[in-house]
Amino acid sequence: MNFGTVAILGPGLIGGSLALALNERGLTDKLVIWARNENSFSAIRKKLPHVTLTTDIIEAVRDADIVVLCVPIETMKGLVEKFADSLKSSEVLVTDVGSVKESVDNAIAPLLKDKALWMGSHPMAGSEKSGFSAARADLFTKATVIVTPPNTSQISEQIFCRLRDFWQSVGGSVAWIEPDPHDIAVAEISHVPHLLAAFMAATLTDEGKEFVGKGFLDTTRIASGSPELWKEILWDNRSAVAAHLTKLINLSLQTQEWLKNTEPEKAKSEIYKLLKKAKDKRTQLITSISNL
Amino acid sequence: MNFGTVAILGPGLIGGSLALALNERGLTDKLVIWARNENSFSAIRKKLPHVTLTTDIIEAVRDADIVVLCVPIETMKGLVEKFADSLKSSEVLVTDVGSVKESVDNAIAPLLKDKALWMGSHPMAGSEKSGFSAARADLFTKATVIVTPPNTSQISEQIFCRLRDFWQSVGGSVAWIEPDPHDIAVAEISHVPHLLAAFMAATLTDEGKEFVGKGFLDTTRIASGSPELWKEILWDNRSAVAAHLTKLINLSLQTQEWLKNTEPEKAKSEIYKLLKKAKDKRTQLITSISNL
Repeated sequence: MNFGTVAILGPGLIGGSLALALNERGLTDKLVIWARNENSFSAIRKKLPHVTLTTDIIEAVRDADIVVLCVPIETMKGLVEKFADSLKSSEVLVTDVGSVKESVDNAIAPLLKDKALWMGSHPMAGSEKSGFSAARADLFTKATVIVTPPNTSQISEQIFCRLRDFWQSVGGSVAWIEPDPHDIAVAEISHVPHLLAAFMAATLTDEGKEFVGKGFLDTTRIASGSPELWKEILWDNRSAVAAHLTKLINLSLQTQEWLKNTEPEKAKSEIYKLLKKAKDKRTQLITSISNL
Repeated sequence: MNFGTVAILGPGLIGGSLALALNERGLTDKLVIWARNENSFSAIRKKLPHVTLTTDIIEAVRDADIVVLCVPIETMKGLVEKFADSLKSSEVLVTDVGSVKESVDNAIAPLLKDKALWMGSHPMAGSEKSGFSAARADLFTKATVIVTPPNTSQISEQIFCRLRDFWQSVGGSVAWIEPDPHDIAVAEISHVPHLLAAFMAATLTDEGKEFVGKGFLDTTRIASGSPELWKEILWDNRSAVAAHLTKLINLSLQTQEWLKNTEPEKAKSEIYKLLKKAKDKRTQLITSISNL
């Protein structure tokens, strides 16, 4: 497998890890990394001596067969506007690694129409650390990478298969869903869990702190993610996040009602049903993951 | 260190693990395990051939120097009433392993007044598994065990030191706090996190399930705990749990307001502050734990 010239725009955790993975596996003829400024260049050069580093976006994409947007979501549109007319052909594959897809798709697809082949990606790989210093070649190993065709009943095979091969070749396991249901699903399994973890960590008192155990540490682990990055993710997916939060607020209010019930057995039976449902769903989840 | 005759009432995960730990470290002259029925006896005998097994509560406590209540909280009072007059002296140390302390202390302290030395314990050790089959001798290794003197400004050294030695000798790290603030602290770091993990697992949809990653699995891990056990824990600590839930509901509502804000930069700055506070608190927490 060889993807020709690959341009990675943004050498953060995801972009940097992608560069390391492509390089380690020898999957490119040429690897280009673009960054806004040269701050990270010496660190990158130590690990990737043969990569082309540039702050010139046109130079970065000019020869590319694949362009991967690894910049913050709110800067993607401006960046694509700058280089859309400088791609070498309309066969160039452009994708991104943003964790929200509907707004990205709406912003990018029209800009690249007839100028490139576009399909969004969301690698579900991360770490509570950020930046190139946290990048590692095995970040995508066994990670799910969600690819978001605009219409799953009419998937463009030409685009989808290249993108699938690309992510699989760096170790990812590829799944696909349309952009809008993608955003609802990730609100549920990633963005709202992040918020709840943050709520729990933020409200920790000095008394509570004394007695923290493994449970609290696990439950709040993701709250150590980058606040800069996560404020953008939560904002970009705000409508799905707010909607899922409503579900959890309602469950909290319902639970408070149960806890105020004057009939202990009835209250405990309702709480039991909720906990049992949660445990069963999680057990099924673990089983289905181990069966993969 | 030798604690003489130790009676463990209830051979579940905690009671079973305590028996295995005391046995493995040779800390008793005699180890007695009481259970409601004989169902678990053959399993226990395989791992602890020299232990005395009985379903007779009077026989269980008659020779004991230390009695440890490892039964569900709502059955503790009834059990203590049965054996309070059968202890060999008022120097016998009685403790429990319940995860809620104010109600236990209120129920048990009066029953044992002048009949035994009483102080509650809460070993912060557990597992998503339950029952004797999940018990292990190293369950308390490096676990925090909270001991709850009724008044920390007048701690009974005689009771506290024996109880501290007891838990330390099975590997625990002992902390202390009064029963009421204990319940508030554990609502915050254990009971409410359990509920939130359950809410997230219970509301998981089929679409979300497809894309679950390590973050969701960690955040919901504790939701795999025993619903039978946890419905009791949540009920027993209902007032502190409901109060802490209110804090988190308010944070959720506040976050929804931010996500609806028409000034993105202002909204993101508020979300950033919350996430930053959470991350910083968690970092301090990790640092203080590693420094122990």
